[in-house]
Amino acid sequence: MNNHAVYHIPDVPYAYALNKDELRILLRVAKDDIKKCNLYYRCRYDFESSYKAVKMNLFEENHLFEIYSIDVSIFRNRYRYYFEITDNNGEIYYYDERGSKIKTEEEQEIVAFQYAYIGEADIYDESKWLQESIVYQIFPDRFCNGDESINPRNVKQWGGTVDHRALFGGDLRGIINKIDYLRELGITLLYLTPIFKSPSNHKYNIDDYYMIDESFGDIETLKELVRTCHENNIKVILDGVFNHTGSGFFAFKDLLEKQEKSQYVNWYHIDNLPVSIKDINYYTFANKVANMPKLNTANTEVKKYFIDVAKYWIRETDIDGWRFDVCDEVDHQFWREMRIGIKEVKKEAVLVGEIMHESVSYLRGEQLDSIMNYPFKHAMIDFFAKRKINAQELNDILAINRYIYRESISKQLWNLIGSHDTHRFLTECDDDINRMILASVFQFTYLGLPYIYYGDEVGVNGGEDPQCRKCIPWNANNQNIEMLNHYKNLAKIRKENKALIHGNYRDIGSNDKILIFERNLEDEKIIVIINNDMHLNNISLNLEGTIYDLYNGREITVNGNIEIEPMNFKILKIK
Amino acid sequence: MNNHAVYHIPDVPYAYALNKDELRILLRVAKDDIKKCNLYYRCRYDFESSYKAVKMNLFEENHLFEIYSIDVSIFRNRYRYYFEITDNNGEIYYYDERGSKIKTEEEQEIVAFQYAYIGEADIYDESKWLQESIVYQIFPDRFCNGDESINPRNVKQWGGTVDHRALFGGDLRGIINKIDYLRELGITLLYLTPIFKSPSNHKYNIDDYYMIDESFGDIETLKELVRTCHENNIKVILDGVFNHTGSGFFAFKDLLEKQEKSQYVNWYHIDNLPVSIKDINYYTFANKVANMPKLNTANTEVKKYFIDVAKYWIRETDIDGWRFDVCDEVDHQFWREMRIGIKEVKKEAVLVGEIMHESVSYLRGEQLDSIMNYPFKHAMIDFFAKRKINAQELNDILAINRYIYRESISKQLWNLIGSHDTHRFLTECDDDINRMILASVFQFTYLGLPYIYYGDEVGVNGGEDPQCRKCIPWNANNQNIEMLNHYKNLAKIRKENKALIHGNYRDIGSNDKILIFERNLEDEKIIVIINNDMHLNNISLNLEGTIYDLYNGREITVNGNIEIEPMNFKILKIK
Repeated sequence: MNNHAVYHIPDVPYAYALNKDELRILLRVAKDDIKKCNLYYRCRYDFESSYKAVKMNLFEENHLFEIYSIDVSIFRNRYRYYFEITDNNGEIYYYDERGSKIKTEEEQEIVAFQYAYIGEADIYDESKWLQESIVYQIFPDRFCNGDESINPRNVKQWGGTVDHRALFGGDLRGIINKIDYLRELGITLLYLTPIFKSPSNHKYNIDDYYMIDESFGDIETLKELVRTCHENNIKVILDGVFNHTGSGFFAFKDLLEKQEKSQYVNWYHIDNLPVSIKDINYYTFANKVANMPKLNTANTEVKKYFIDVAKYWIRETDIDGWRFDVCDEVDHQFWREMRIGIKEVKKEAVLVGEIMHESVSYLRGEQLDSIMNYPFKHAMIDFFAKRKINAQELNDILAINRYIYRESISKQLWNLIGSHDTHRFLTECDDDINRMILASVFQFTYLGLPYIYYGDEVGVNGGEDPQCRKCIPWNANNQNIEMLNHYKNLAKIRKENKALIHGNYRDIGSNDKILIFERNLEDEKIIVIINNDMHLNNISLNLEGTIYDLYNGREITVNGNIEIEPMNFKILKIK
Repeated sequence: MNNHAVYHIPDVPYAYALNKDELRILLRVAKDDIKKCNLYYRCRYDFESSYKAVKMNLFEENHLFEIYSIDVSIFRNRYRYYFEITDNNGEIYYYDERGSKIKTEEEQEIVAFQYAYIGEADIYDESKWLQESIVYQIFPDRFCNGDESINPRNVKQWGGTVDHRALFGGDLRGIINKIDYLRELGITLLYLTPIFKSPSNHKYNIDDYYMIDESFGDIETLKELVRTCHENNIKVILDGVFNHTGSGFFAFKDLLEKQEKSQYVNWYHIDNLPVSIKDINYYTFANKVANMPKLNTANTEVKKYFIDVAKYWIRETDIDGWRFDVCDEVDHQFWREMRIGIKEVKKEAVLVGEIMHESVSYLRGEQLDSIMNYPFKHAMIDFFAKRKINAQELNDILAINRYIYRESISKQLWNLIGSHDTHRFLTECDDDINRMILASVFQFTYLGLPYIYYGDEVGVNGGEDPQCRKCIPWNANNQNIEMLNHYKNLAKIRKENKALIHGNYRDIGSNDKILIFERNLEDEKIIVIINNDMHLNNISLNLEGTIYDLYNGREITVNGNIEIEPMNFKILKIK
């Protein structure tokens, strides 16, 4: 047996409570190395009855590892357990916290793993509504101008050339005006980049967290927007920039003015006094961005101020959660307290982090509900847009991306393929719409939330910021209507087929440029085939008879083989 | 390269802040598989300068794995990093979060690990005083009777036969009276099992958390005890039983009396009403222990009540921390809030859990400072008392026990060899004092806190509870004075040689029944050799000249070899 590959710890993602009475236990072993794996478990206070043995099932795999899983339940929820692994040579190993030794029952008792208790306060409540969402990200200045009376000064012509300072007059009224468009597109969760008072077009340097930027509207417009969205079954999430403020924020202004006498001297990270915008002798977002001084979130006053901000907007406008900017540069303790604060005001509100790398330390359950899944985006670019990796490599990346988190979190990740901080996906595809269509099919049929960056659905392209932040064209002549209908179709398919949301994901024979996988939920099974190849491919499927082609809305007959055109796909429902 | 063995996550114990400006990064690889390992790192906002390369050092090893480590520092503490591993065939692999692929610099940028920021609020403050402590556990009823006027009714003759109900009259005054004994023994941290009002002799069923049991003394006696201890450089830790209460606790009594009308109906876990002591239709400690109903610590009122208790005794009597009973069956959130509460009252107070298995989920830094290290105890029994495992197996167990925690926590673990819940170690040794002497030598020279269960130091034996809870004999004729002097000597050696406390631990050639290891701190080096064999052994040491035999207090001359008598040991200081 490959002992180096075997891994388990009694904590997420290898052991975690699914609910008050169910524990999921996973074990990692080497790929193709074992024949079977049994979990032995009993109550940790039961020293008399035998351990109960139960076969574990293959849950995830990549080219190195297999991960086995089983859900178990015990009266009073106090677990003692170990693993019995039989390898292909028939040898049996008992795995405990010390490694691999064959043990007597008495010895196992001592060295067995323990999940001592499922504490109710520690149970992570998954968010069903989040899992069922389709995200649409709006950069408000560029989405729609619905109220010209509040246009910013020097507003540019809609659709004009973008630059780092341009303002185009998009606003909250514009979003309200486009509610039919959004509903018909099929999205169910709107994420707005910052809307609070700020001199920039992106508004990530906020000067007043209690005021909507005048060029976007006011609190009443936001309330109306949220109400309108809710009436159309769309949730709303705002962007919480709590890593840094704008340089015009009252505390930073007070500090600049009063220096060491300011009561806000500990709200920031100052290298030395006097604080100077010219010298930038303070910690900022990224490298010396003068107008984004970093907050000292270890300071209790700072913590309270911004948790209050987050609570205020939920309470006043009924938004459904927050996306947190530069989330990974703010301490865990801040997010723990933020979670408690937010849940006090609205239990079903969610916390989503901008974290561009995989980060288990924020996603164990007591901090965030989700992050923006940039590792997913990179994989989509490498496979679909750039064709640098094959299906096996893609699956390897995605398997890790799934199995480092508890399953409910994996189902809640925001699977973006582009954002206001990246090249648009279409541009990554060298404007080849077919590659993007395949990527979006994967997005909408894979585990986790499909995510549309405003305009992607009508073929907007654009490279590095600010090019990725162009105005959306509302003249149908400038929209790719084929693309729009494609996205509408995908959204409809996803919403009508719960297996695509809650079902297991299982690769069933992807190879080189072809992805073949299924999503299973109870007796609902959907098979997806994506031919990312320039050639027609004849896929051998272990299927005979009539199945339903969800994308084209018709029955088709298969007898073990199915032809997939070059750069084409099938979403098939097995009845 | 053995790819299955390579492991890293950007979280404890594989990445953690040592302080505001230093990050420790570790990587696990297979034993004897690689030639060298470099860390490449740079600021995550630096896209221009090259990654800095630095060689990682071997930090830990067991029979399967080697763990490499390096401490790094970067202005603003925002890290991006990956590993370059060269194996014995000269092949080079780059390890990132996706696994093992050779990458271009541009690709590395995307898939590199990130430790996005060292948040000040997340830094774990190690406890130097705890690391330097030698623990002495007292079961108060059995240590010393200092005030006969408060003897419990039916008190038994000191030293009489123990049973589950016997009371012997030990009290807080008795401990005060023995302060010279404790100071001369050399212990520096007193841990008392529960002292609050309770009808039992062990007092783990507490009826009033705000009252010292009348047979032990009162709050003034406790204040005097703590003051006296502090004057003698001894810290004091009490036992916090917050998993369950006694059945005489006011809330449980109210519940029994008023049933569904009680305002405490949600303080416990009730299967159904009416609550009945006879039926035990409620969740208890262990299996149906009627007088220990389990608390519902998810209830905010319960949480507040017991955190207030913990704070009260620190504030009023200046104790130095708490040991928490059945800690692992109370939720993590309770301990997170407990930590915040306790640190508010006394920043240097510590939280120690009774957790009998290895449990990383409590020891990441935001909950406990230490646990009672039962895996260590089991290993001591298997190697020294029962001789069931050899030195290699012992090292394997201990290596895991160390490297699953951050180093500062490993240095704070309470390395017990027995307690009121186990057979006494001497009894595990079949009363062979020599085996126990070797075990204690290991305890006092290894990483983590030496821990004496009251009476062990004078040769008290005893099997299963209640036999392990006998009265300590104060008549010198009934004490093993040789053993006592041995413990005094060990305590003195440990206190005078900081390498034994803060130094690195490194095995330097243990084999079969012989342990050989060194502890290094700056230019202080101590070598310990323990011959757990019935035969004389001639140890080959890479040492020549005069070295200091710490235990026997004399210089000895070695020229590459040193003879160790059967069942004997050497603690050698290299000048």
